[in-house]
Amino acid sequence: MITAKARAVDGPDKPFREAEIIRRDLDSHDVLIEIKYAGICHSDIHTAHGEWGPVNYPLVPGHEIAGIVTDVGAAVTKYRVGDRVGVGCMVDSCGECENCLKGEEQYCLNGNIPTYAGVDKYGESTQGGYSSHIVVTEDFVVRIPDSIELDVAAPLLCAGITTYSPLNHWGAGPGKKVAIVGMGGLGHMAVKIAHAMGAEVTVLSQTLNKKDDGLQFGADNYYSTSEPATFEKLAKRFDLIINTVSANINLDAYFALLTLDGTLVNVGAPGEPLSLNVMSLIGHRRSFAGSMIGGIRETQEMLAFCAKHNIVPKIEVISADHIDEAYKRVLASDVKYRFVIDVSTM
Amino acid sequence: MITAKARAVDGPDKPFREAEIIRRDLDSHDVLIEIKYAGICHSDIHTAHGEWGPVNYPLVPGHEIAGIVTDVGAAVTKYRVGDRVGVGCMVDSCGECENCLKGEEQYCLNGNIPTYAGVDKYGESTQGGYSSHIVVTEDFVVRIPDSIELDVAAPLLCAGITTYSPLNHWGAGPGKKVAIVGMGGLGHMAVKIAHAMGAEVTVLSQTLNKKDDGLQFGADNYYSTSEPATFEKLAKRFDLIINTVSANINLDAYFALLTLDGTLVNVGAPGEPLSLNVMSLIGHRRSFAGSMIGGIRETQEMLAFCAKHNIVPKIEVISADHIDEAYKRVLASDVKYRFVIDVSTM
Repeated sequence: MITAKARAVDGPDKPFREAEIIRRDLDSHDVLIEIKYAGICHSDIHTAHGEWGPVNYPLVPGHEIAGIVTDVGAAVTKYRVGDRVGVGCMVDSCGECENCLKGEEQYCLNGNIPTYAGVDKYGESTQGGYSSHIVVTEDFVVRIPDSIELDVAAPLLCAGITTYSPLNHWGAGPGKKVAIVGMGGLGHMAVKIAHAMGAEVTVLSQTLNKKDDGLQFGADNYYSTSEPATFEKLAKRFDLIINTVSANINLDAYFALLTLDGTLVNVGAPGEPLSLNVMSLIGHRRSFAGSMIGGIRETQEMLAFCAKHNIVPKIEVISADHIDEAYKRVLASDVKYRFVIDVSTM
Repeated sequence: MITAKARAVDGPDKPFREAEIIRRDLDSHDVLIEIKYAGICHSDIHTAHGEWGPVNYPLVPGHEIAGIVTDVGAAVTKYRVGDRVGVGCMVDSCGECENCLKGEEQYCLNGNIPTYAGVDKYGESTQGGYSSHIVVTEDFVVRIPDSIELDVAAPLLCAGITTYSPLNHWGAGPGKKVAIVGMGGLGHMAVKIAHAMGAEVTVLSQTLNKKDDGLQFGADNYYSTSEPATFEKLAKRFDLIINTVSANINLDAYFALLTLDGTLVNVGAPGEPLSLNVMSLIGHRRSFAGSMIGGIRETQEMLAFCAKHNIVPKIEVISADHIDEAYKRVLASDVKYRFVIDVSTM
């Protein structure tokens, strides 16, 4: 049994407090990780606030985890003490279903085990990365390339893979016109990755406030969606639109920006049902799709891609005492572009 | 100028009446077709009733046209007098845009010219197939294989291509599980075509009334969607669902039947917006898509496919005096499975 320092919330409206949590003794395939940095994802906030269903409090969020291996189980072959590693949104899956066997563990037919607010195969509640240590089975640990610092590596484990996976799956690359809706934590990663893949990248953001950043991140064009003229000008233009915004948007207006066989992929998940006019899809054989993080193999591939193209998120490192404040700033869209907790301050 | 006999409606609530309409003199690339049979499509009814927007009455519907070439323009190379030919939902397009150049004229960026209720390049209202003759530019005429009788050929020009195209585009074939929602004019064609493509075919219909027919058409399974157990039993099962129903359905319930990367394609167009929960798509990287008829090249390919596999619709031939009655029966779902007008009775 390992006692880890952590930051936990006790209810939807409660502030974070210091906590101690128990990490299990290492099973034969487990890896003990000393966490160095943990990113703050909007999902953490939804879950901590109980907005995505009932939560078993106290809760330790965090699924953008970067750290160092400090111990390994007897049968571990992939990692050694001292390795630089990461953990993302899931820590286990059945390993036996059709989707797991394809390496798409995020879509495990028996349900993957989320890094926090889940129940693991031992029947224990999972607790996330706002913590000094975590124990994870080696198959759900990825290796962080040497060229990527641990603080900027952390957000790649959710924001990075969540945008890389659909860009990869739907073939963003040379000759393709890709639009990114939203310039937050996910959006700014999507811009960098799509640009590195060779696509023509357009940002569609509510305002032009972050235009300079967007162009610097690799966007070729940057438009305000508050301007109706944007939707006229960009009609039937994009092969792929990645929507990183969780708010309810006018889907039909965005479908109209897709070319023949174009796809709009939601990686954000609005809590309420969305409305759409099917004719918006039928008119040009368009598709509306959803995508959820990525598999472990693809996450490792994403890290290699980011290392090769020098892609890292733009982050603001905070100490553990500032999580509540960071949450407020995320909700106010006052973050460029990801908060990362320095776990040494815990 | 050619005077053709026709059946026309004068308003949304008006019955069909005998009419004479003018078909243009043959331009150099035009083909004059003596129409033998014209199918009755649900779209005809929507349009005749003014449900799809304002209509320039009197209107002659009909876009499932089979007949014989009786004259050709000076520069026509593809057809000769006596050829057995068909015309579907469109009679022209710009021919120059990206989509037309791909052979996807139905998605013409400048708008294809519908067979009726459109305006052609001469500025004239187009009038459809409930008529003794039609003049169409040769590029929008297809050849009907000798082995397909003209009466059963007619519905292939809309019901056939509308279902063949998405089945073909989304790769229905051996090893794929395909569900067809609805067993009407389109649905019964979809079952036959998907079966001939080698897919495992399941019909999802409100009742089991047409189960025997469905199995005879090639369905491997047939379920009632009025039974909640159907949705439990078939969860995560299908690679592709073709929804031929225009009514508002519970999309999320159908998405849940799709496997990883599965697609639900609407070929029917409900008049009202639909509601969906994006999580239904995100959970297994599912897609919701729309598809509209097919291109001319693909329509010719569909006819060859149907000839090869002996696929024809099951039809009920009516005389021209029974169009109003047929419309009522279509609206009451009392048709197995397509009405076809014998134009010689006009």
